[in-house]
Amino acid sequence: MIAGVIGAAGYAGAELVRLLAGHPEVSALVLGSVSLEGGRIEEVYPNLLGRVSAALEKPEAVIARADVVFGALPAGLGEGYAAASLERGVSYIDLSADFRFDDDEPTYTAWYGKPYKRPELRRRSVYGLPELNRARIKALAAQGACIVGNPGCYPTGASLGAYPALARGLSGAGVREGTGGVIIVDSASGVTGGGREPQRSFHFSECFDSLAPYKVGSHRHSPEIARNLAKMAGRPVPLIFTPHLAPMNRGIQSTIYIPLTAGWDAAAPRPPGAEIVAKTAGIRELYADFYRDEPFVRVLPEGAVASTGRVRHSNFCDISVHLDPAGSTLIVASAIDNMVKGAAGQAIQNMNLLLGYAETAGLMAIPASF
Amino acid sequence: MIAGVIGAAGYAGAELVRLLAGHPEVSALVLGSVSLEGGRIEEVYPNLLGRVSAALEKPEAVIARADVVFGALPAGLGEGYAAASLERGVSYIDLSADFRFDDDEPTYTAWYGKPYKRPELRRRSVYGLPELNRARIKALAAQGACIVGNPGCYPTGASLGAYPALARGLSGAGVREGTGGVIIVDSASGVTGGGREPQRSFHFSECFDSLAPYKVGSHRHSPEIARNLAKMAGRPVPLIFTPHLAPMNRGIQSTIYIPLTAGWDAAAPRPPGAEIVAKTAGIRELYADFYRDEPFVRVLPEGAVASTGRVRHSNFCDISVHLDPAGSTLIVASAIDNMVKGAAGQAIQNMNLLLGYAETAGLMAIPASF
Amino acid sequence: MIAGVIGAAGYAGAELVRLLAGHPEVSALVLGSVSLEGGRIEEVYPNLLGRVSAALEKPEAVIARADVVFGALPAGLGEGYAAASLERGVSYIDLSADFRFDDDEPTYTAWYGKPYKRPELRRRSVYGLPELNRARIKALAAQGACIVGNPGCYPTGASLGAYPALARGLSGAGVREGTGGVIIVDSASGVTGGGREPQRSFHFSECFDSLAPYKVGSHRHSPEIARNLAKMAGRPVPLIFTPHLAPMNRGIQSTIYIPLTAGWDAAAPRPPGAEIVAKTAGIRELYADFYRDEPFVRVLPEGAVASTGRVRHSNFCDISVHLDPAGSTLIVASAIDNMVKGAAGQAIQNMNLLLGYAETAGLMAIPASF
Amino acid sequence: MIAGVIGAAGYAGAELVRLLAGHPEVSALVLGSVSLEGGRIEEVYPNLLGRVSAALEKPEAVIARADVVFGALPAGLGEGYAAASLERGVSYIDLSADFRFDDDEPTYTAWYGKPYKRPELRRRSVYGLPELNRARIKALAAQGACIVGNPGCYPTGASLGAYPALARGLSGAGVREGTGGVIIVDSASGVTGGGREPQRSFHFSECFDSLAPYKVGSHRHSPEIARNLAKMAGRPVPLIFTPHLAPMNRGIQSTIYIPLTAGWDAAAPRPPGAEIVAKTAGIRELYADFYRDEPFVRVLPEGAVASTGRVRHSNFCDISVHLDPAGSTLIVASAIDNMVKGAAGQAIQNMNLLLGYAETAGLMAIPASF
Repeated sequence: MIAGVIGAAGYAGAELVRLLAGHPEVSALVLGSVSLEGGRIEEVYPNLLGRVSAALEKPEAVIARADVVFGALPAGLGEGYAAASLERGVSYIDLSADFRFDDDEPTYTAWYGKPYKRPELRRRSVYGLPELNRARIKALAAQGACIVGNPGCYPTGASLGAYPALARGLSGAGVREGTGGVIIVDSASGVTGGGREPQRSFHFSECFDSLAPYKVGSHRHSPEIARNLAKMAGRPVPLIFTPHLAPMNRGIQSTIYIPLTAGWDAAAPRPPGAEIVAKTAGIRELYADFYRDEPFVRVLPEGAVASTGRVRHSNFCDISVHLDPAGSTLIVASAIDNMVKGAAGQAIQNMNLLLGYAETAGLMAIPASF
Repeated sequence: MIAGVIGAAGYAGAELVRLLAGHPEVSALVLGSVSLEGGRIEEVYPNLLGRVSAALEKPEAVIARADVVFGALPAGLGEGYAAASLERGVSYIDLSADFRFDDDEPTYTAWYGKPYKRPELRRRSVYGLPELNRARIKALAAQGACIVGNPGCYPTGASLGAYPALARGLSGAGVREGTGGVIIVDSASGVTGGGREPQRSFHFSECFDSLAPYKVGSHRHSPEIARNLAKMAGRPVPLIFTPHLAPMNRGIQSTIYIPLTAGWDAAAPRPPGAEIVAKTAGIRELYADFYRDEPFVRVLPEGAVASTGRVRHSNFCDISVHLDPAGSTLIVASAIDNMVKGAAGQAIQNMNLLLGYAETAGLMAIPASF
Repeated sequence: MIAGVIGAAGYAGAELVRLLAGHPEVSALVLGSVSLEGGRIEEVYPNLLGRVSAALEKPEAVIARADVVFGALPAGLGEGYAAASLERGVSYIDLSADFRFDDDEPTYTAWYGKPYKRPELRRRSVYGLPELNRARIKALAAQGACIVGNPGCYPTGASLGAYPALARGLSGAGVREGTGGVIIVDSASGVTGGGREPQRSFHFSECFDSLAPYKVGSHRHSPEIARNLAKMAGRPVPLIFTPHLAPMNRGIQSTIYIPLTAGWDAAAPRPPGAEIVAKTAGIRELYADFYRDEPFVRVLPEGAVASTGRVRHSNFCDISVHLDPAGSTLIVASAIDNMVKGAAGQAIQNMNLLLGYAETAGLMAIPASF
Repeated sequence: MIAGVIGAAGYAGAELVRLLAGHPEVSALVLGSVSLEGGRIEEVYPNLLGRVSAALEKPEAVIARADVVFGALPAGLGEGYAAASLERGVSYIDLSADFRFDDDEPTYTAWYGKPYKRPELRRRSVYGLPELNRARIKALAAQGACIVGNPGCYPTGASLGAYPALARGLSGAGVREGTGGVIIVDSASGVTGGGREPQRSFHFSECFDSLAPYKVGSHRHSPEIARNLAKMAGRPVPLIFTPHLAPMNRGIQSTIYIPLTAGWDAAAPRPPGAEIVAKTAGIRELYADFYRDEPFVRVLPEGAVASTGRVRHSNFCDISVHLDPAGSTLIVASAIDNMVKGAAGQAIQNMNLLLGYAETAGLMAIPASF
């Protein structure tokens, strides 16, 4: 099978190339790049030498030859390539935000500043968080070529961390205005999330040895997370999302605060007692049970905390479950590799679902501890 | 003036030595170490060569000669040295938790596992967060030698970030049980916070290139932060505190979520509008006004975000003020250098207050941008 | 096939586990640990959760069940386990120095402070640098179970970088005493090279953000490198080797200075002219030709420089060829991942040779660019 | 005294601002920037907030008001500003290469691609390595306003490391063509050396967690180092210089190989014996004696190795002395902070010499161990 990648020279594209080159069902790659067309991928990424050698071609050439097309491009370019792919009868997996909002064009437009050019494409598209939408993805694929809106990196880790609590009704967040509280997602990402183009924010000397929040209250992934939480809870859920830039290359660690009850305890905090430990164990069990059949979600045992260093280079989402000492807030830590489960790996997981391969095909890399 | 440091070979002690050696009022240092007694500080820290040369002596020798004594020791050792210092008529500045809880022995004991041996010492001690307690510190010092409980690193950044909001009544947190909400402090610290003794958690290969929460819901700094917030608000305030370990050496960045009103907005998040910008500007002005005369607190202008890279090696606490798009939660980012404002620098600030020096003496280092 | 690893809880052992678990010929793992016997590997390395689950058993249990045994232990323990493996008729691949010196016991003893206990084992052992000894490894294996002395990390990168120049007679190093010059190997390693046990040198706060030489003129890998160079040149070659510790986790970068001629140019350096470029191209071609059939050595094209970031997590050794502007010294840069080609990956490459698998089996991971 | 900085918005300029703001003799700063003229320095570097506030003006405005002018600009711009400064009767300290080659215009032109526009300025200029040229700097200054060519970062650490060996005749390098050998300088620098402008080489994700040589055999600092070595030895000395980029912000560590004798020992390396230890001690003593009166050079005691982490944020150059086990090559490790002794600090040291201040004024910062 020939896999095509448009935007292969960007970081998400390069990660797709690296992972697809090791995929057991992929026999060849056809790569596209607008800015570097005419070059070769192994010149842009010498790490690929001896393993992958391919010209960077026009996007049209990719669509013309591939059996599935990945678009790893900035927002706003996906509709045209998706339509062209469908026309040729092949599916299009979009790593931008263009197909993440289904028919909610107003939200997309509010955050990305552009209208849908071809809104009708959403009849053939699905939001590709397999743990949430596996059945829909498969059902759509059963009808022929289709489009997957691959989730954003922050939304993947944040949503998977909150899903069991919301789906099982643990939280009153959003139940009654004014009382249920808000879900807070506090995340930190490695710098690869900023992409390949040099800019001051990602200049080594500016971000090394420093931790910094950014786009506080205004990051584009907020509406995507909120949308997922609402689907999971079955109702709108108030959300606050704060991303941080951490001095590392890969990984997103999210700490998610989910109110369990309306009553807070303002007494001086005390060390967590036996009751809290037991309650936490119960919720951990619920989480483990919820994700029992998921190949890429690991609910960690007692004593372990989800950290980016344990999922490095893998498609895993690690989740650890904690409780504040007053027992009123569930604190979930989740960790993913932003380039794998947060981008290229999840896109391949979607490809596997679309094409009927084993869902884990090409994605069995064991995380490197160091 | 002779400054004495007990525990000089630990990281906080070494930072005290570095800063005190450049203090205009300090003419000599006398250094103590239990574990390395008999050695020399410049052998333990070769960076000091040519600038500081001093034997590591018994703690008693330090107390016998110093005009002010710093204790940079694990919790549980401060009372004896403090008493001995007072007996000799010199003040004792304790960097452990031993004098941070005043007469609230139950909370200290619950978290540190030890009773007070000499509870009466708290009549001569004060919690040394100058921005909160400057008047009390000075008043106590006016009566003679005394004890300062130097704040913890996390509590310093977290408390200063929340202070204006609580003192000016912006937040309803804790007002009415069940409605006012909780204050969440989500912090990340550099690895020097773990001290000088090698252990697996702080082994380079274990923590490099990874971000990890730890002691979720059970960190000893929780009660100290809660205590400060309660003093600032004039009432108990529910608190959740989550520390993270970040792959850098210095700095603590805290993101503090302070509920402003009881009503949450569960509509899809939208980009912050003009109203939010204006409201944020108002709160920023309030913060700037609140800290107008503080020499070490910088309320950042619009567009800037408090990050550890901007306070590196300085005694500053940077604060930036943000608002969630729904306008219901104040999001404050604060950043300190954990070894300076979070430990040694603040201890020297307290020394300056005790001894009547300019509060900024020896603490005017400009942060290094890189 | 069942692969056994003694010392599975150390870093080299853990990397063996990670790589062997994805090896197409390995059906099961049996793991041993002296210090952590009774525990489970996935408790020590939670990154393995869901992929590898195995008890840590006594070394004897490993030898009793495995079809090939890897020893990832400190020097001095290999002979006993090797002998026991041979007795059972299975090969032993030793990652320590115990079998790197063949019958040169005096050199081993001078550097490792121990005599051989069972010198006769060297009749069944071979130094496992496949690029140098492939034929001997295969020949020995053809006669039955045997022992491989897996090369040290520094020696691997250094030796491969110098090999073509020495084998093809480019360098006069060592030809005539007093004139031929010395080969200088200046290397920097990531911190995983220091192993898993916490110690001050590898404490995050001590080695982060710093670059430091260590064991200058006295590192144990010196005699191993010298031995390889002598084999490659067909004569003794004077060597100076200086290792450095770099603030990163993986990788060894070596810059190797190989004198080409006896005549130095003491005129002011000038930018390299066309003549130098042409001469460099010629040597590059010689190198490329020399390694044409090697699956894991990449001679980089003009303009590229061997850096650790391009071989990360792979079994590649990257080599780039340069010349000083006077044309008198060949400067070779080589880069490996110290845990893969420098340890576990090369050991598996040796296993593949011993057992007749494709030499690249289980080792086709593409380096991650970031 | 008013200090002026042209190019204040670059990294070297910003470091000058940070250090000059704390200089006891500097009463005011006047800052210039071509690219950011009209802005303010504290907007570009928010770390300066509350400590330094100054407009970024035209270069001419700086020269018009300052009592000494620093030029922190790319090569090729210094002559005009230097001439204008001299005309006004104030000295000009140039941090570019424009005044590092005195009247050796051919070498400057060969490496920097430009002729001297005003060669006569070299009659009033001096190369500002104080340890080498202190007397000349002072003598020139005694005659009135003059120009200092502040050394490059690599040349500073490399030259100081080799100076005693060359000046005291320890090395035969360059003595007789073909026999004396070459001096090899193998250096690694932090990323701040690449300056403030974002580019791919210094993009966080490209250089983090990787070590890479660059410009092998072709770095512009080669001729400057060679020039210094020749002055120190009293004869031309062949040189090879290889820079590396290390994943840290500050610091240059150089390992310098200096041939002591013409005879190499090609026997297998053995651990350094008592004879080597004694010989090393003798050379260490010679080095210590040579630098006895230098305020910023520290020759480290036995057992210590010069590393960048020990000179961080200081004007020190640390030097440790080693010997290869054969006793034929002196291996010197030197470490500086590339932004301080390698740029801004040394420039201020030169200012102190020019203006008759204590040479250490404003430069007494103690290195931070972490």
